[in-house]
Amino acid sequence: MCGIVAYIGPRQACPILINGLKLLEYRGYDSAGIALMNGELSVYKRKGKVSELEGFIEGQKQESTVGIGHTRWATHGEPDDINAHPHRSGNGRLVMVHNGIIENYSPLKSALEKEGHIFHSQTDTEVLVHLIEEIQQQGDLPLEEAVRIALGRVVGAYAIVLMDKNDPDKLVAARKASPLVIGVGEDEYFLASDATPLAGHTKRVIYMNDEEIAVVHRNGDLQIKTISNRVQTPFVQELDMKIEELEKSGYEHFMLKEIHQQPETVADCMRGRLSHESPYIRLGGVEEYDKTITNARRFIIAACGTSWHAGLIGEYLFEDLARIPVEVEYASELRYRNPIIQEGDVVIALSQSGETADTLAALEMAKAKGAMIYGVVNVVGSSISRLTDAGSYIHAGPEIGVASTKAFTGQVVLLTMMAISLGYKRGRIPNSYFHKLITELQNIPGKIEKVLQHEEQIKYIANEIKDRHNALYLGRGFNFPVALEGALKLKEISYIHAEGYPAAEMKHGPIALIDEEMPVIVIATNKSAYEKIVSNIQEVKARKGMVIAVVTEGDEAISKMADYTIEIPDTEEPLTPLLSVIPLQLLSYHIAVMRGCNVDQPRNLAKSVTVE
Amino acid sequence: MCGIVAYIGPRQACPILINGLKLLEYRGYDSAGIALMNGELSVYKRKGKVSELEGFIEGQKQESTVGIGHTRWATHGEPDDINAHPHRSGNGRLVMVHNGIIENYSPLKSALEKEGHIFHSQTDTEVLVHLIEEIQQQGDLPLEEAVRIALGRVVGAYAIVLMDKNDPDKLVAARKASPLVIGVGEDEYFLASDATPLAGHTKRVIYMNDEEIAVVHRNGDLQIKTISNRVQTPFVQELDMKIEELEKSGYEHFMLKEIHQQPETVADCMRGRLSHESPYIRLGGVEEYDKTITNARRFIIAACGTSWHAGLIGEYLFEDLARIPVEVEYASELRYRNPIIQEGDVVIALSQSGETADTLAALEMAKAKGAMIYGVVNVVGSSISRLTDAGSYIHAGPEIGVASTKAFTGQVVLLTMMAISLGYKRGRIPNSYFHKLITELQNIPGKIEKVLQHEEQIKYIANEIKDRHNALYLGRGFNFPVALEGALKLKEISYIHAEGYPAAEMKHGPIALIDEEMPVIVIATNKSAYEKIVSNIQEVKARKGMVIAVVTEGDEAISKMADYTIEIPDTEEPLTPLLSVIPLQLLSYHIAVMRGCNVDQPRNLAKSVTVE
Repeated sequence: MCGIVAYIGPRQACPILINGLKLLEYRGYDSAGIALMNGELSVYKRKGKVSELEGFIEGQKQESTVGIGHTRWATHGEPDDINAHPHRSGNGRLVMVHNGIIENYSPLKSALEKEGHIFHSQTDTEVLVHLIEEIQQQGDLPLEEAVRIALGRVVGAYAIVLMDKNDPDKLVAARKASPLVIGVGEDEYFLASDATPLAGHTKRVIYMNDEEIAVVHRNGDLQIKTISNRVQTPFVQELDMKIEELEKSGYEHFMLKEIHQQPETVADCMRGRLSHESPYIRLGGVEEYDKTITNARRFIIAACGTSWHAGLIGEYLFEDLARIPVEVEYASELRYRNPIIQEGDVVIALSQSGETADTLAALEMAKAKGAMIYGVVNVVGSSISRLTDAGSYIHAGPEIGVASTKAFTGQVVLLTMMAISLGYKRGRIPNSYFHKLITELQNIPGKIEKVLQHEEQIKYIANEIKDRHNALYLGRGFNFPVALEGALKLKEISYIHAEGYPAAEMKHGPIALIDEEMPVIVIATNKSAYEKIVSNIQEVKARKGMVIAVVTEGDEAISKMADYTIEIPDTEEPLTPLLSVIPLQLLSYHIAVMRGCNVDQPRNLAKSVTVE
Repeated sequence: MCGIVAYIGPRQACPILINGLKLLEYRGYDSAGIALMNGELSVYKRKGKVSELEGFIEGQKQESTVGIGHTRWATHGEPDDINAHPHRSGNGRLVMVHNGIIENYSPLKSALEKEGHIFHSQTDTEVLVHLIEEIQQQGDLPLEEAVRIALGRVVGAYAIVLMDKNDPDKLVAARKASPLVIGVGEDEYFLASDATPLAGHTKRVIYMNDEEIAVVHRNGDLQIKTISNRVQTPFVQELDMKIEELEKSGYEHFMLKEIHQQPETVADCMRGRLSHESPYIRLGGVEEYDKTITNARRFIIAACGTSWHAGLIGEYLFEDLARIPVEVEYASELRYRNPIIQEGDVVIALSQSGETADTLAALEMAKAKGAMIYGVVNVVGSSISRLTDAGSYIHAGPEIGVASTKAFTGQVVLLTMMAISLGYKRGRIPNSYFHKLITELQNIPGKIEKVLQHEEQIKYIANEIKDRHNALYLGRGFNFPVALEGALKLKEISYIHAEGYPAAEMKHGPIALIDEEMPVIVIATNKSAYEKIVSNIQEVKARKGMVIAVVTEGDEAISKMADYTIEIPDTEEPLTPLLSVIPLQLLSYHIAVMRGCNVDQPRNLAKSVTVE
C-alpha cells in the first residue's frame, strides 16, 4: 500500500526510480511522483499511473544521482497532483515520501499553522515534513536528528525517506509499522518499501526494524539508530528473487499468470514437506514448536481479506481433522478488543505480504499477552515472518496481481498439511485416511491442471454474466469460505457487487435480492450436504435466479437444474477448496477483462495493506 | 415459512381459514389456497397474496364446516397456481397442505410414476400425498394409518394436514421439525403452523411434538400417536396472545410499529430482571443453571440471519465483560460439521420464532453431544423453547414484520444483561462499572426514544439515497455486527444490495466498489477506535464515496467530513448497538417505502425459516 523507492550512488537516479515505481505499482497507483536533486530540487508528480508520470517528465531536467519516488494509495485527501508525493517542506529545503498514516496530524497541523506554516495539500505527509523542517530550523540540526525528534511526537505508522537540498550526499529513512528495505549495492544504496525494485540491482538487503532511522551516504557510509538514539548494527541478508518472477511471461496479466501458476505453486508449497514415510509431513516451523502446537487448546487465526478466507477454511480443517477449536478473527477487530488469549492458545497469522498492518498489530498484541505466534507468509523476510515465534513460508513466489490467487491456494495447502499432520499426531484420523489424504494432496496439482482446462467454457459463462450488476456466491462447509473468496475476487477486479454466504443463510435475507437479473454461483461439490444444497438451488430457481454451479465431475442431478455447471475432479472433501476456487478465479478474471477493467491494478485497491 | 391453518367444527370454515391465512401471511406469500368439503372437495388456489385468493373465491361455493388452508413460500417449483397448496392425491380423494421439504421426493416420485401416478406440479408435497393415497388404497387403511406408514418412508421435514373426502368428519395432521399447533375450542378444533390464527378463537392450545400424528374429529375426539404407533396424552397449555398485538395500531406497516415499539419492548425485556440490589440481574433461566453458565469454558452461539448478528454482538459482550471465549456459528454450518463441543461448553441458541429449522437441528445435535443448551427466544412455547435445558424469553411480543427489528434489540438486551451479570459474578468487572452499566441499561429505552425523534432527518437522508443500487455499511468492535445488521435490513426490504464489513476490512477488497454512486454508512460512535474510523472515512472520501455517519451527540470532527450525520445519545460503549441500530432500521424502512416496496412482506422472504 503505497510504494517507495529511492536511490543514491554513481548512476542516474531517474530511470532507476521510474522502473522501481513500475515494479511497485501493485502497491498503489492513485498518483506517482519523484524528486531529483542537481543543484536544485525538482519534484515531478502526477495523478494516475506511473506511465502518466513518465510522460510528464519527458523532456524535463532529469539529471541526478540521488532521488526519491513514490506511488500512492490515497488515505487522506483525494488522489490528485497536489496530494501526490513527494511533499516539500515550507522553505523548500526538504522533500519527503511517506507510506502509512499519521494519526495525530490534525493537532500537529494546527500547531504548525500557528507558527506560520502554510499547507498546500490535504495530506498528513505534508504536515510531517513541515514538522521536521520546523525542528531542523529551530535547533539547526542535521536532518536525521530532526527526523528523530519529530518522530517522537508522532502517533501512527510510517515509512519515510527524505532528501535535504543543503546536504545532497545523503538520504534519511525511517520506519514504524510500515516496511522499508535497504538495498546495498557497489558504492550505492537503494531504499524501497519492499524488495521488488531491488531485484536485478543487488542481492544484499537490510530489512529495517520498527523505530529505526537510517542514513545512507554517497560515500558508502550507513548508520542506523533507533528513535531513542541507540546505534544499531545493520544485518545484511541475501535476497532470493529473480527478475523473471516479476514479469508476465507471456500472459496478458499478472493475475492470469498467477492463476495458471497454481499447479506449480501448490506443488512448491508441498515440496519436501510431504511424504508417505515418517515423519510424513515436515513443516520446518511446526517441528520446532511441535509440542506447543500439537497440544494447543485453541487456535486463533488472525488475517484480513483473502487471507481471512483461507483462515476460515483453516477453521474447518483444524476442527474437522485435528479436533482443535479454532476462532478466526479479522485482525483489525482482534487488536482493538482485548481478546481472550489463554494459556495453550496458539495464534496463527496469515498474510501474503507479511506486512499487513492490522495483522502485524494484532500479532504484537497477542505476543504481549504471551501467546505463541505462528506465521504463514509468502514474502521472505517480511515483518510478520520476523515477528513470529515460528512459521512456514508458502513459497508461491512474488504475487503481483492485486487480487490474490496463488497465495490463497498456497495458504490453504499449508493449513491443510498442518491440519492433517496434527490430526494424525493427535490420533484423530485413522492411518488409512491419513495416507489417503496425503496421496490426494499429491494429486491436487494435476487436478488443478484439469480445472484450468475448462477455461474456454468459463470464458463463455463469463460472457453471459459480464453485464450483471450483482452476484451471490453460495457454499456450505469447507466451501462456504470459497464462496466468500469467489465473491471477493469478482468485487475486487470487476466492481460487480458480489457477496458470499453459507448457502442456508440465503433464506434469512439475501434471497430478497434474487430475481432474473441475479446470477447465483453455487459450489455444490460437498458430499456431506449435497441434498441440502440441491434444495437451496431449487429455492433460487423458484425465484428465477440464474444458477452457475461448480459440481463434481459426472454430477447429473444439478446439471438438470442449473443454467451452467463447471466440473471439477473428485477429491476428498477437505481438499475440495483447492479445486473449487480455481473456476471462480478464472470467472472473475474473464468477467473483469470483458468489462474492460484493469485487472492487475483495480481501482482503489493496493497490494499489501500497510495502513490500518 | 409457509403457513397452515385448518378448521373442523360447527362454524363456517371459509372465513376462519381466510382470516387465519392473512394472519399467517408473514410466513410466506408466494401463493395461497384453501380446500373445503361439502359433499364434494373444492380446492381454490392462486399465485400471489391471500387477497388474490379472496377475490378468486368470491361467488364460488364456500359452504363447509371443515377445511384446510395454506400460504406458501416456494422451495420446489415456481410460485404459481399449480404449485400452490393444497394438493390433491391422484384419485382426488385426499387433499393436503404441507410445510417443510421432503428430501427424498425424487426417488419416491420415480417409484410412484412407475405405479402409474401422474403429477401435475413440481412440488415435493404432491409426491407425498400420492404416496399416502397409494398406501391407503393398497391396504384399505384409515387415513391416519396410511399417513403413519408413509411418513416412515420419508426423509425431511414436514407439518401436514389432510382431509379425506370419504371421511369428512376428521382432519389428520403430523409434524416433524416444522411446527404445528392444535387449538382446542368448544366442540371445534383449529390447526395452525403457529398460534397467531388461534388468537381470538381459543386460549387452549396443544403444541405437537416431532413425529406425532394427530386426528381431530368433529365429535370432539382427539387422538395423538407417534409414527412408531405409541399413543400420546395431549398436553393442553394456555395461550397468552392478544389480538391487538397482531394489528398495526395506526402505523402504516408492522415494521414501523415494531421499530417504534422498541423503547417499550426493550424495557419489557429488562422488567423484573434488573435492579440495583442483589441479585441485581435476575434471569430466570440462568439462575437454574447458574454454576454451569458462570463457569462455562466457552459459549457457542448458534443462530441465523438477524439473530446471528445479535449473536456476534453477544461475542463482543461476553468476551469483553465476562472474559469467556465465544464462538458464533451459523446454525446451518454448525450442524453439518461435527463441531467440537467440549465439557464446559454452553450452547446458546438465538431465534425470534423459536422454530428456525437450522437452529433447531443444530441444537439437537449439540444436545446429543451432551452440551448444556440455553435458548433466547421470543415466541412462547416454540420448539426451541421446549428443547433447551434453560432459557429466557425476550418478551418483545409478536413480531409480524418479516424484517426483524424489536426482536433484534430484545436479543441484544438479553445478551447484554447476561454478559454484565456474568462479568460481575466472575469478578471481571469492578463494582462501580457494574452499577454504571445497570444504570445505563435502564436509560436505554429513553435514549431509543430520543433516536426515534430523528426520524424526519433520516427520511431526508433516505430520500437522498433511495435510488442507489448498492451500499456499504462499516463499523468496528461492538458496532461491526450492527453494520452487518443495517446492511441486511436494507437488502431485505428495499432489494438494494447492501453489505456490511468491519471498517478496516474495506481496504482488503470492498473499497474497489466505491465511487460517487456508492453510499457508505459508517457507525462512528466507538470511543476506543475513533481515530481509526476517522481514517476509514477519509479513505472513502478520497474515492468520492458518499458518507452517512452515525455519531455520538456533539461529534464535530466527523460532521466536517461526512455528507450526513445522524446523532445518537452518548452511552457506555458496550451498549451502543442498542442505539446505533435504530437509525439504520428507520433508514431501511423509509428507503423501502420510497421505492414502493412491500415492507412487511418483502419478495422471496418469509418470517420464521422452518426449512433448512
